[in-house]
Amino acid sequence: MNFEEKTLSRQEIFKGHIFTVAVDEVELPNGLGQAQRELVFHKGAVATLAITPDGKLLLVKQYRKAIERVSLEIPAGKLEVGEAGSEEAAALRELEEETGYTTDKLELLYDFYSAIGFCNERIRLYLAENLIKVENPREQDADETIELIEMTLEEAKTAIQSGDICDAKTIMGIQYYELMRGDRHGQAFTNR
Amino acid sequence: MNFEEKTLSRQEIFKGHIFTVAVDEVELPNGLGQAQRELVFHKGAVATLAITPDGKLLLVKQYRKAIERVSLEIPAGKLEVGEAGSEEAAALRELEEETGYTTDKLELLYDFYSAIGFCNERIRLYLAENLIKVENPREQDADETIELIEMTLEEAKTAIQSGDICDAKTIMGIQYYELMRGDRHGQAFTNR
Repeated sequence: MNFEEKTLSRQEIFKGHIFTVAVDEVELPNGLGQAQRELVFHKGAVATLAITPDGKLLLVKQYRKAIERVSLEIPAGKLEVGEAGSEEAAALRELEEETGYTTDKLELLYDFYSAIGFCNERIRLYLAENLIKVENPREQDADETIELIEMTLEEAKTAIQSGDICDAKTIMGIQYYELMRGDRHGQAFTNR
Repeated sequence: MNFEEKTLSRQEIFKGHIFTVAVDEVELPNGLGQAQRELVFHKGAVATLAITPDGKLLLVKQYRKAIERVSLEIPAGKLEVGEAGSEEAAALRELEEETGYTTDKLELLYDFYSAIGFCNERIRLYLAENLIKVENPREQDADETIELIEMTLEEAKTAIQSGDICDAKTIMGIQYYELMRGDRHGQAFTNR
């Protein structure tokens, strides 16, 4: 079966700092005709499941304008221009800025698209275990107000139930941590 | 600490069939000044982790224009106009259209935002266990070419490693299934 949708034309709608929006006219496979695809292009992001020496997760409390509320998330940030291929460095930068920690052991857990139906945002999710306190950490972005919170796995699971934790990458990280704790040798989900 | 970002003005950039784009001018908390927020508004979606009687996962192969490649995902679909509050019905519709199955037992696993940094797409992820074959299932959307694939948990984990499975909701579902199989009584992650 043929799946590919050939691009017949692209109309660029918006070129922002965070993402670009386009509408493609595509030719459907198997003689199904034509269709429009509304698309959001994003430079990608990194996120880190950071575990303290006593087994707690580092979470960041921040306001999310898209949902008009505060959310608790694992440390994360967008790739900056020219950072493709330097995702580990970006993850370390965001970890330091948001938590004041760095690590000498960063492990890629998952490499995925956040909203594959219309957006190409690709997120690398890392595990950081050997956390090292940074003396004078790089400062966070000037437009970010954040609060650092440590949680046990049980507390984090309760926060999912209450909705305080409500984003995909953070839930993925917490599930990974639960799988890891149950079966550390498994490394079942490590990809690439 | 105050986190809220007050909206000073909103410029609507694009009103599409799938999403709307706006740029907000916001007043940052704590006297940090003003900033712009680029936002994507989406009606929301449903997804279903569907398990066959012999313990396999139902996956759908389809082309994703945003990443210009084929992807393997759990059955999912957008909420249609007026479906807010009828997410279970939407999940059953998408399950039937994409797989030919329905169920008399749908359980909400997670309720999350896919790309919280800039987008309000909210996904309800369900578990469907008692699958029932539908005699004459509702047809899938005219612009969709899909292929139904059954995979064991181990095969699905291999597909994550190879990148054939590369989207957040599907990886979340597979993680949940592994946790569930390891500790069925736990129901640890069920929320709301």
